[in-house]
Amino acid sequence: MINVLKLFVYFLSCTFLPYSKGTKCGEACHRTDPDKINIHLVPHTHDDVGWLKTVDQYYYGSNKGHAPFGVQYILDSVVSELQKNTIRRFVYVESAYFWRWWEELDENDKEMVKNLINEGRLEFLHGGWCMSDEATPHYTAMIDQMTLGLKFLNSTFGECGRPSVSWQIDPFGHSSEVAIEFAEMGFDALFLGRIDHEDHKARKNDKNMEVVWRPDPTLGEAGDLFVSVLYNLYTAPAGFCFDTYCSDEPIMDNKKFHGYNIDEKIKKFEDQMEQYGAAYKAKNILVTMGSDFTYSVAASWFKNIDKLIKYTNSRSKTLNLLYSTPSCYVKAVNSLNLTWSTKEDDDFFPYGSDEHSYWTGYFTSRPTLKYMVYKANNILQATKQLATVIGNKFEDEEFEFKRALAIAQHHDGVSGTEKQHVADDYAVYLEEGINAGKKIFIETYKTLYGVDYPDDQHFGNLRNISQFNITEDNQNFVITLYNPLSRIISTPIKFPVQQSFHYKIYHCNGTTVEYDLIPISANVLKLPGRHSNATHDIIFIAKDLPPLGITNYYIQVTTENLSNAALTAVSNNNSIITLSNGNITLEFNKTDGLLQSVTKNGKTWPFYQNFYIYNAAKGYNYNADTRASGAYIFRPIEIDPKPVSLTANITQYHGINVFEVHQTFSEWLSQIVRIYKDSVDIEFEWLIDSIPITDWTGIELVTRYTTDVNSNSTFYTDSNGRRWMKRIRNKRKYWNLTITEPVASNYYPLTTSICLRDNTKQVTVITDRPEGGTSMHDGELELMLHRRLLYDDDKGVVEPLDETAFGKGLSVRGTHIVQINELTTSDVEHRLKAVESAYHPVPVFAKTLFHLNEWITNYNRTFSLLLKELPPNIHILTLERWQKNQLLLRLEHIFQANENRDYAHPVDINIKEIFKFFGIYKIQELTLAANLEKEKLKRLKWNFERQNNTSISSKLINGTITLLPMQIKTFLLFIEEKDAQN
Amino acid sequence: MINVLKLFVYFLSCTFLPYSKGTKCGEACHRTDPDKINIHLVPHTHDDVGWLKTVDQYYYGSNKGHAPFGVQYILDSVVSELQKNTIRRFVYVESAYFWRWWEELDENDKEMVKNLINEGRLEFLHGGWCMSDEATPHYTAMIDQMTLGLKFLNSTFGECGRPSVSWQIDPFGHSSEVAIEFAEMGFDALFLGRIDHEDHKARKNDKNMEVVWRPDPTLGEAGDLFVSVLYNLYTAPAGFCFDTYCSDEPIMDNKKFHGYNIDEKIKKFEDQMEQYGAAYKAKNILVTMGSDFTYSVAASWFKNIDKLIKYTNSRSKTLNLLYSTPSCYVKAVNSLNLTWSTKEDDDFFPYGSDEHSYWTGYFTSRPTLKYMVYKANNILQATKQLATVIGNKFEDEEFEFKRALAIAQHHDGVSGTEKQHVADDYAVYLEEGINAGKKIFIETYKTLYGVDYPDDQHFGNLRNISQFNITEDNQNFVITLYNPLSRIISTPIKFPVQQSFHYKIYHCNGTTVEYDLIPISANVLKLPGRHSNATHDIIFIAKDLPPLGITNYYIQVTTENLSNAALTAVSNNNSIITLSNGNITLEFNKTDGLLQSVTKNGKTWPFYQNFYIYNAAKGYNYNADTRASGAYIFRPIEIDPKPVSLTANITQYHGINVFEVHQTFSEWLSQIVRIYKDSVDIEFEWLIDSIPITDWTGIELVTRYTTDVNSNSTFYTDSNGRRWMKRIRNKRKYWNLTITEPVASNYYPLTTSICLRDNTKQVTVITDRPEGGTSMHDGELELMLHRRLLYDDDKGVVEPLDETAFGKGLSVRGTHIVQINELTTSDVEHRLKAVESAYHPVPVFAKTLFHLNEWITNYNRTFSLLLKELPPNIHILTLERWQKNQLLLRLEHIFQANENRDYAHPVDINIKEIFKFFGIYKIQELTLAANLEKEKLKRLKWNFERQNNTSISSKLINGTITLLPMQIKTFLLFIEEKDAQN
Repeated sequence: MINVLKLFVYFLSCTFLPYSKGTKCGEACHRTDPDKINIHLVPHTHDDVGWLKTVDQYYYGSNKGHAPFGVQYILDSVVSELQKNTIRRFVYVESAYFWRWWEELDENDKEMVKNLINEGRLEFLHGGWCMSDEATPHYTAMIDQMTLGLKFLNSTFGECGRPSVSWQIDPFGHSSEVAIEFAEMGFDALFLGRIDHEDHKARKNDKNMEVVWRPDPTLGEAGDLFVSVLYNLYTAPAGFCFDTYCSDEPIMDNKKFHGYNIDEKIKKFEDQMEQYGAAYKAKNILVTMGSDFTYSVAASWFKNIDKLIKYTNSRSKTLNLLYSTPSCYVKAVNSLNLTWSTKEDDDFFPYGSDEHSYWTGYFTSRPTLKYMVYKANNILQATKQLATVIGNKFEDEEFEFKRALAIAQHHDGVSGTEKQHVADDYAVYLEEGINAGKKIFIETYKTLYGVDYPDDQHFGNLRNISQFNITEDNQNFVITLYNPLSRIISTPIKFPVQQSFHYKIYHCNGTTVEYDLIPISANVLKLPGRHSNATHDIIFIAKDLPPLGITNYYIQVTTENLSNAALTAVSNNNSIITLSNGNITLEFNKTDGLLQSVTKNGKTWPFYQNFYIYNAAKGYNYNADTRASGAYIFRPIEIDPKPVSLTANITQYHGINVFEVHQTFSEWLSQIVRIYKDSVDIEFEWLIDSIPITDWTGIELVTRYTTDVNSNSTFYTDSNGRRWMKRIRNKRKYWNLTITEPVASNYYPLTTSICLRDNTKQVTVITDRPEGGTSMHDGELELMLHRRLLYDDDKGVVEPLDETAFGKGLSVRGTHIVQINELTTSDVEHRLKAVESAYHPVPVFAKTLFHLNEWITNYNRTFSLLLKELPPNIHILTLERWQKNQLLLRLEHIFQANENRDYAHPVDINIKEIFKFFGIYKIQELTLAANLEKEKLKRLKWNFERQNNTSISSKLINGTITLLPMQIKTFLLFIEEKDAQN
Repeated sequence: MINVLKLFVYFLSCTFLPYSKGTKCGEACHRTDPDKINIHLVPHTHDDVGWLKTVDQYYYGSNKGHAPFGVQYILDSVVSELQKNTIRRFVYVESAYFWRWWEELDENDKEMVKNLINEGRLEFLHGGWCMSDEATPHYTAMIDQMTLGLKFLNSTFGECGRPSVSWQIDPFGHSSEVAIEFAEMGFDALFLGRIDHEDHKARKNDKNMEVVWRPDPTLGEAGDLFVSVLYNLYTAPAGFCFDTYCSDEPIMDNKKFHGYNIDEKIKKFEDQMEQYGAAYKAKNILVTMGSDFTYSVAASWFKNIDKLIKYTNSRSKTLNLLYSTPSCYVKAVNSLNLTWSTKEDDDFFPYGSDEHSYWTGYFTSRPTLKYMVYKANNILQATKQLATVIGNKFEDEEFEFKRALAIAQHHDGVSGTEKQHVADDYAVYLEEGINAGKKIFIETYKTLYGVDYPDDQHFGNLRNISQFNITEDNQNFVITLYNPLSRIISTPIKFPVQQSFHYKIYHCNGTTVEYDLIPISANVLKLPGRHSNATHDIIFIAKDLPPLGITNYYIQVTTENLSNAALTAVSNNNSIITLSNGNITLEFNKTDGLLQSVTKNGKTWPFYQNFYIYNAAKGYNYNADTRASGAYIFRPIEIDPKPVSLTANITQYHGINVFEVHQTFSEWLSQIVRIYKDSVDIEFEWLIDSIPITDWTGIELVTRYTTDVNSNSTFYTDSNGRRWMKRIRNKRKYWNLTITEPVASNYYPLTTSICLRDNTKQVTVITDRPEGGTSMHDGELELMLHRRLLYDDDKGVVEPLDETAFGKGLSVRGTHIVQINELTTSDVEHRLKAVESAYHPVPVFAKTLFHLNEWITNYNRTFSLLLKELPPNIHILTLERWQKNQLLLRLEHIFQANENRDYAHPVDINIKEIFKFFGIYKIQELTLAANLEKEKLKRLKWNFERQNNTSISSKLINGTITLLPMQIKTFLLFIEEKDAQN
């Protein structure tokens, strides 16, 4: 009798009375049945923030030739259907779309949507502006895009709008950094869709589809994250995709009409749930009811799910179906108090979807877009800092710029896996964002220097190909330089000029500055699409830039016959060409023109560098064997790539501050190897013009740095610009790797860095954009630079990754900074350079009618937002205006635990003693994404193997906080603004 | 100042304040602006009741391989979007879908939908169960399907659910009969989408897109109908199809997002409206915003139309856009008091969509489906009559049967233009309907004869190919015969038997009945799929069947050695074979086996008949020139068809009541030419087995009856089984026909009849199903019987019309009744035979264990629902149960004005004196579709050329009504039911 009654109660509760209007969001979960397998049906739509269409085309539903969906209509439809039956649930992820939609709702609809959210019927997951990629975005951009999305949700919907679960169900591999960030953002769990096919199989067998991931044990429990891998990617079970664009049959239950199919449908569902159930520990299964851009016709999902629940629950003895959300699922699973396996020191890279489909090509795909994203992020960080000076006058522009960066972090954005026209749109957005940022630069400078400060400022975005009309065509121009780093720094500034003039460069204090004048390489001069009269680049060193600080330079064309600063080619008759700044010496073999050794501190190491080509697999993807290399997939047809050339023509230039060897490998491939006077870093600035296509084979171009480091199959790549991840060739931590793609399966993403180590030294490469990299042989680092492919890899984009411009293959120029260091100093050199690379000083250029003297009279001032520079291991990750009289501050310890004796230790910082412009009267510590006070955070607790629930995070005391290695702390500063002219 | 104010008022009224909640449906029209062109935007969806998918697949959204739509979701989505903004409007047409959807709504949603309807925001147009074809349905079935739909709307939604406008925007040509019916149903206007391309062009030039159509002036104003031809079929203007399945761009108006396109969109809309405007007289334009199965994502329409209205009205000086409905449009146009052209004595057949695309193939396409629909309608009319006897016990079954017939009337149903699987589904529905009807037959017979009356009754649907296990395999069986005609009639009954037995047939009064036993033709015996041991057919004449009456026969196998009733072939050595019943004599040429003359009343007329083949155009429809013959299009490649054979093998059989010549033209083509003893009609029962395909050319088979009628290019086809329409070869009434398809453009639909006339005589062919026909030469009638085509004609169905069964081309058997009469008698013969063909007596067959004597003892009774038979010119078109104690009665005058001296005159009928079983205490005259009291009807008045607003319809006085020729009158009878056993 009891059982019958119980069943009756459940029947009622789940099918008819699950929910009463007015329930608060946190209490809206439908009850589970402890005696049955609880099937949590989660209606969701996966709305790529750009992919086959641009974000706005997806939002509006335009450009249907590429995809028919319109997110505005999806949301319209979903909320209409949620209104119709209170048992229904829906989850939404991408704030980029929700914001767009919210922008256009009228007040009634807003009220209605708020009710749905407050009642827990519409729930946000994740909440970032987009579901970012995990391999290619820089951590700063990821944190920013999460913050942007969550801030929108928080400020619009309050606590019920705060997601408690993250949802990275489409990205192509998963990083430790992302997991840690999500933990620090306060998420209770992270759901993943794509993990390696062998990993997936092993985890299903081991019932380890759900584990506690602890990427950095030094963080204590704050860095632990419950991770759930979905059974079936993020799609509905076979036969149950009820979308208007799916072909599965609906549930047809009216016997008056033809097509009645209840029996068949229920059977098919039960069969699949048996398989799902075998892979998970808890008697709860999360079943995703949705897919890409589903719910255009929300009724087609909800009506059928209503029926599925009704008929299955009334018939099945083992299953209890319920509308659910991931947070409800997580609560249900958590309440069972099971003990979970632990995943430590490991991430989910690379991702192989089958034995010949390693998604390691996208680590490099679209290198120019990746670079633009990286540089725009650099400018954005500077912009946000500067914007704190000028009040909220340009908050729209700041928001515009943030949005541009945020959408670009999408997993088909910076990843390079979108269609060409979509990549173009990201670029347009980024350019618009940069231009919006420029307004803030100008306004700040006018605020600080006075209203007459030049307002026709330019970043000179094409300076990397030595094209810039401001510096080429003007007799007088000024450079205003902003240093977004929290320490004092010197940096080279480079700009193109015409050889026909002589130049003088003045610091704003009136002192002249030495510079070098270097001929522009022939391969640059002939770049298609370059429109410039410049023949030379000027390079000078801007010294001692103040932290978060501003300085300026005045440049004038002079008629004085200066001793020509231009470097001339040095010819010698030795078999060796030597490039040296006194601290480091590079030797090039004159016969083949290639680097052969590096000498530093009296030690000489063999060091060889050259460029190689992998020929890409062709094919039409009929099966795994015929997979082509494409935007996602890297699939070379040989293990050993072929050198582009065994020799390079070389020229060398010795200047005052800069020493260069120019190498030309072919008509389309050249490189400058460069060292600066006061540095031991080596720059390799490569230029890849149109990759030639012969016999219709795609080409993937790599550079290899070959050393004598005894690396023992091991190398390290950074996780989104932060922690080092240890990689071992041909090995995975969780399962025995089957070697089916010997090269591609050894590729890993590097956002900024890759290195090799042995007992004495480290060779590190710091990139200017994310790239794929590996070490196929001990002592060797290999980085993929560019890809030109002629076949699609059948992952949906339906375009070969054949970027072109001006009728030719797209040109790419980039720089690797290579460091060769004793182990003891390598981490310092690397960390400081990596953060400098991301927060590089940003110059703006403007022509001026001021004479030199007027300029110096008026503008001989430098500024710093800081009272003093911070210690080198502490970085101001974020400084931005939050709202009126509130700033958001993130401080970051940039060293990893134990990596350096001098810097990798806890640091105390008194926040109140940092800023010059703002009086801080209150400080509140927030979670990482700034959407909750840290002390209000209550994450679910999990039992897991090797558990060590220490809370090692310090609390703020009188404005002072302790930062542990790799720790990021987020603060809301309540300020009284001081006079900006201070 | 006044103008500015006026503009301001309109701006407010149209864009912001058009409507206040609580408005009654009839007052819900948005205001028009007299100073502008008013653009009535009409959101609609055209939901075929079967076409590429079955009606249920369309309803549910299943079988998406053929089409992705689901009407349930369309309606869900539309009502959700209507809720969101009160200015929005939507119109819905097909009750078959609305009923399905209504079946599944919960009470809340029903209430919400009722409110939308009551407030005029959701409006029904047309309201029939489907939007019927106009060429092929019988008028009885059209009236029934309209009645079914409108009854559902009326009983569910009351007065606001009554459509005031009809909407035949997709059917492929338009008949006079339909127009008259709509006028008599009380519609204020009829909208058409497809009229001949030359007609359309001419009407645009003449501003005659809107006219008053007066198909039958003898009806007076009751038969006038305002007709509006849409500009652009029924689709949205180019670039403004906002459906999720359209590729037009949405309106993008947020400058924060990429894609802003307001200027371009408004310009494009205005340009098109200029063209539209030039074609219409009133400063009002109806713009259809929708198409086939649009509004799956209703938001994508409404949001964009909202924007279109908002931005156009705020910018345009000439246009005033408003949400509207056809009824609002009609009111606006009517209020202008313009004078319209008149269209008289003419219809809109045939329809040529371009110079090589005459939609005249579908008049014949799928002849077996057409036959099944025709026969099922016959049974349904009988069923409805019988059901009045048994109360409401089987109202579900009756409804099921009505629904089956109703969906089959769809313009891709009986028209034959649906996909094969859909045709199959109509057939299944019809069979289910027939079976449901059978239950009513059985119940009625049990009610009348007693509970022991056999309940295993069968119609013997395969008797037309001489297959029927009841009559083949049983020693004793009974036939119960129902006569649905309102006059006494005799009719032949035919059923297959085994030659090995001898049979005796008894009337229930115990008298024996003479019969003939005729060998089954060889071409029938070898039909694929025929499973029968029968070798012969028995034919007997069931005499003097009572009106709306029942009688029965007992058949037993006997061992008596009867004089064999079987006919034997008559051989003679003359060159002529003569078939004669004394009244009429047919002569066949023995050499070629073909009919050569008919002799009647002492006069001999040459009369030749043979079968011919048109070879069908092939092609892939790249343009008009490469149009293929297909399900819709008839496009022969020659003007003169080729005879299947110049000779026929013949056998003749002379019996007691029946005289036959069996002709075999080929392996696959045969015919029986038959006369009955007491008749002067000639039956041509043709059998087309699998049409052979050689060299992959489609074949269209016609029969030609060649006479000496001096027809002067003129012939007549019936309009849906009623009025004769005069057709003149190579001529159109409204415009100069360009002869581009000399055969196809001369084809016209005949539902039951086609004839030729000269000054003295008429040759009439009465068919057993709709067919296409023409007269390509004077004196000749040509009817298309069957089509086997190998190419699709690109009108959407994407299947060649190649019907197959058992691995071969589909077999078809059918009958033409040919009458040759003096002009004075031809109409009587034709009218009576035509109505008899549609309301043919329906036999059911059952085996019985009763012995003959028991049978006669128990069941020697006949019944009639009538007190007496009605005059032959008056027909009980409808007798059916309406609701408790209410019957629906339609009386029809079956003669056309002036066609016959004796019958084509007004007839008085006292309704109270018709029925035996029901006491009538109240009679209410209704509009034709029975959804409004006649006296409450207030149609809009129009001014038009040659106007003559006489109301010639009589009123009911003391139960007596006067019926004018061709008039149908509809009554609700309030009854006290008498004892059925009376």
